[in-house]
This record gives sequence, structure tokens and C-alpha cells, in this order.
Amino acid sequence: MELHGSLNMIGYGLASIGSAIGVGLIFAAYINGVARQPEAQRILQPIALLGFALAEALAILGLVFAFVVGV
Amino acid sequence: MELHGSLNMIGYGLASIGSAIGVGLIFAAYINGVARQPEAQRILQPIALLGFALAEALAILGLVFAFVVGV
Amino acid sequence: MELHGSLNMIGYGLASIGSAIGVGLIFAAYINGVARQPEAQRILQPIALLGFALAEALAILGLVFAFVVGV
Repeated sequence: MELHGSLNMIGYGLASIGSAIGVGLIFAAYINGVARQPEAQRILQPIALLGFALAEALAILGLVFAFVVGV
Repeated sequence: MELHGSLNMIGYGLASIGSAIGVGLIFAAYINGVARQPEAQRILQPIALLGFALAEALAILGLVFAFVVGV
Repeated sequence: MELHGSLNMIGYGLASIGSAIGVGLIFAAYINGVARQPEAQRILQPIALLGFALAEALAILGLVFAFVVGV
């Protein structure tokens, strides 16, 4: 059979669609906020990094889950 | 069977949908910010590049994962 | 079996969805910025071309990856 690969890879791909779009939305809002008020960067930075970590965690969780169910 | 190829390629394709849209969102916000205040480019550039790297990392991680599970 | 083709082609197709949307977002922001301040084109052009290259790279990487895993 010529077809090979792992279905886990499709699962990870689907998981990372949403994560990457979420990270893009968070950083876009962060950039817009800093562009409007440059002195607000000190307040906005921890919020953006917290949101990034929470959105990225879903894709990393998918990567870990893929190894748990067995490659 | 005539159907061949690798399921990992579909996974990478799915992963890079989100990453590319995320990169697009981040750079669109960066361009809008610089267009509004050209002197803010010095502050916005590291934020945009950080966001780009974090969004792109998900697709690169998928590419690495594809080789880990075996092409 | 009459069905033939390669799964890699589906993967590349998926990868290029995101790249095309990302490039579209970046150039839309570039056009909006130049439309608002025509004298800002000199500053915005390198940013837009950098963002375009980084978003397009994901689809090109998928094309290269398709040949690596074997067409």
C-alpha cells in the first residue's frame, strides 16, 4: 500500500489552525493598542503574553496527546 | 492502488493554514500602526517580529513532527 | 481502482489557503495605509514585502515538503 503517514498529524494540523489564528488575533490587537498609545505597552505586554500562552497551549496539548495515543 | 502520498502532508497543510493567517493578521496590524504613526515603527517592529515567530512556530513544529512520526 | 493522485496535492492545497489569505490581509493593510497617507509608501513598502515573503514561505515550504516525502 502506497498510502502512509499518521492520522495524528492531521489532528495536530487541525488543532494548530485555531491556535495560530488566535495568536495572530492577540498580537494584532496588542500591536494596535501600542500603536495608539505607546506608553500603554507596559500594561499590555503581560496580557498579550498570557493570551498567547493560553492559545498556544491547545496546539502543544495536541502534540503531547499525539504521542500519548501512540505514533 | 493508485492513491499515494503521505497523510503527514495533509497535516502540515492544515497546520500552515492557521500560521499563514496569523502572520497576515500580525503584519496587517503592524502596517496599519506604522501608517498611522510612522515614528512608532521602532516600538512596533520587535512586537510584530515576536508575534510572527510565535505564530510561524506552530507550522514549523508540524513540519518537524511530520518527520518524527516518519514520512 | 480508478481513483488516483497524491495526497500531497491536498496538503499543498490546504497550505496555500492560509498563505493566500495572509498575503491578502497584508496587502489590504498596505493599500489602506497608502490610501490614507500617500507619502508613507516609502516606509510601508518594505514592511509589506517582508510580511508577504514570510506568509508565502509557508506554501512554498509545503511544495518542497511534498517532493521530500515523494510524489
